[in-house]
Amino acid sequence: MSNKVVVRGLNCPVARSLEIIGDRWTILILRDLFLDGPKKNQELQDSLKGISPNILSDRLKKLVQYNLIERVIYTENPPRYEYQLTKKGNSLRPVLEELRDWGKTHTSA
Amino acid sequence: MSNKVVVRGLNCPVARSLEIIGDRWTILILRDLFLDGPKKNQELQDSLKGISPNILSDRLKKLVQYNLIERVIYTENPPRYEYQLTKKGNSLRPVLEELRDWGKTHTSA
Repeated sequence: MSNKVVVRGLNCPVARSLEIIGDRWTILILRDLFLDGPKKNQELQDSLKGISPNILSDRLKKLVQYNLIERVIYTENPPRYEYQLTKKGNSLRPVLEELRDWGKTHTSA
Repeated sequence: MSNKVVVRGLNCPVARSLEIIGDRWTILILRDLFLDGPKKNQELQDSLKGISPNILSDRLKKLVQYNLIERVIYTENPPRYEYQLTKKGNSLRPVLEELRDWGKTHTSA
């Protein structure tokens, strides 16, 4: 037992990661892009049962701002877009793999 | 591009993990216990700047319910408790390590 309390608060690497991806829907969007490759907004909407369109838009926007995903055009006329992981987004793979492995071992379907 | 949409929703191992630890404060509580060993409620309160006492109590209660942490007595009279990781809680170490590593590489203090 120590009397010294270290205030790590929100400026440690774990907290800073959570600042960016510490939202459940955010991680589930990333999960879908890892598993399926590029996806359209509507495909994400269909896959992520229960997410509201507003929340989905917000999370996609933030993921683009953080440069974890990018919006790419897949048909020109009319212009249609899909989302894909950037290199930085791909670097989150080990985090998702650990979450998956832990879920497989310690939770039941 | 595929027209087939897989609805994974909330029943995949990643989503099931997030059901349990997909809350930022929850992970920061675990972080403190990983880094410091057993801690008292007040020590967590002091370390986690910005957490309200109610939220802290709620998260600790859930972590105990999920058997990720346990409450142990450290002084008898009056009885005082601290929280420590269980074996199951310890199994989350790789998840936190990946979050830490990613934060170190991809975010700035």
